[in-house]
Amino acid sequence: MTEPTATAPKPPRMRGNRPAYTTETLLEVAVTVFTERGYDRTSMADLATAAGLSKSSIYHHVQGKEELLTLALDRALDALFAVLAQPQATTGPAVDRLTQVVRGTVNALIDELPYVTLLLRVRGNSPTELAALTRRRRFDQLVAILVHDAQQQGDVAAEVDAATATRLIFGMINSLTEWYRPGRQELLDLPETVVRLVRSGLAP
Amino acid sequence: MTEPTATAPKPPRMRGNRPAYTTETLLEVAVTVFTERGYDRTSMADLATAAGLSKSSIYHHVQGKEELLTLALDRALDALFAVLAQPQATTGPAVDRLTQVVRGTVNALIDELPYVTLLLRVRGNSPTELAALTRRRRFDQLVAILVHDAQQQGDVAAEVDAATATRLIFGMINSLTEWYRPGRQELLDLPETVVRLVRSGLAP
Repeated sequence: MTEPTATAPKPPRMRGNRPAYTTETLLEVAVTVFTERGYDRTSMADLATAAGLSKSSIYHHVQGKEELLTLALDRALDALFAVLAQPQATTGPAVDRLTQVVRGTVNALIDELPYVTLLLRVRGNSPTELAALTRRRRFDQLVAILVHDAQQQGDVAAEVDAATATRLIFGMINSLTEWYRPGRQELLDLPETVVRLVRSGLAP
Repeated sequence: MTEPTATAPKPPRMRGNRPAYTTETLLEVAVTVFTERGYDRTSMADLATAAGLSKSSIYHHVQGKEELLTLALDRALDALFAVLAQPQATTGPAVDRLTQVVRGTVNALIDELPYVTLLLRVRGNSPTELAALTRRRRFDQLVAILVHDAQQQGDVAAEVDAATATRLIFGMINSLTEWYRPGRQELLDLPETVVRLVRSGLAP
């Protein structure tokens, strides 16, 4: 058994003397192991050990570790794209849509922290990873367009380079995966602090 | 020979048919290899191959790879602490000192990019790495104190959590190691863009 860590999900309920996993709870375990050990260096045996299951029990849920990676990266990316689809992100002045997207992205990272953490570690070592990187870049581009449009509408300072600003915004937001820990009182206002830095920080 | 990459330093001048390294130019090569491959997975043979030298030629400069790591991390940390020692960072209202420290930190990252990139990858796997992490945390704490003091002096919004704001500032600045590439025209104003995000973004 691997040692429990601060980020390990709580174990599932038991079925007899074996943990009773759903694909979703198995995915939680897999994502933690992938992030700690690196996807390429994780074997199905490692996943079985971490879950307290036999390898064949894992194959009952998924065809292999690649399917777990796909499920995990899709979960992160679906959460991010859901932010762009919110009504407040699709109508109104660009600066208001940008504000909503920044707030929603921070909340998506908080809600799906282990999945987005894994997404940000992906380097494109397989078709699955390349597809995830392509979707992630598309998300970044759509936010960059919002910054650009807000600038065109006079709500972002003219002297700011929109692409650079977008990178700094994502630098700030993505850093959550390095230091955010759930449940800390002082972090309750985190989404609004990020919104303030972006909105007031870029204002003309 | 390893393939040259976008981040590889230019080769040193030749001495006969061998590259003529100083400890400093050898360090440039080592830092690039450490960052690409990971320090723990880099052997002296890897360094010799990347430099086009024999292992014994490298031992002429340093006692081993640990000394190269120490030199590299010290270079990054010395650059950061030099920012805190600048006159504009030590006198005047805290918000002005913070502004100068943010500007100086961005410039230090730009000037010492490969060294700071390596510093940010360090996870504390040896006494050398632990010592570097301790110094880096001390730097972060001193900046956190500046944010806190600026807030006490009424120049940072009262509703912002100073520790959270400090983490977001470093998230933004440290992300440079992921995307900054020297020589791009649109990045010339990068230090002032970060200053704007911090100063206007945190203003009451």
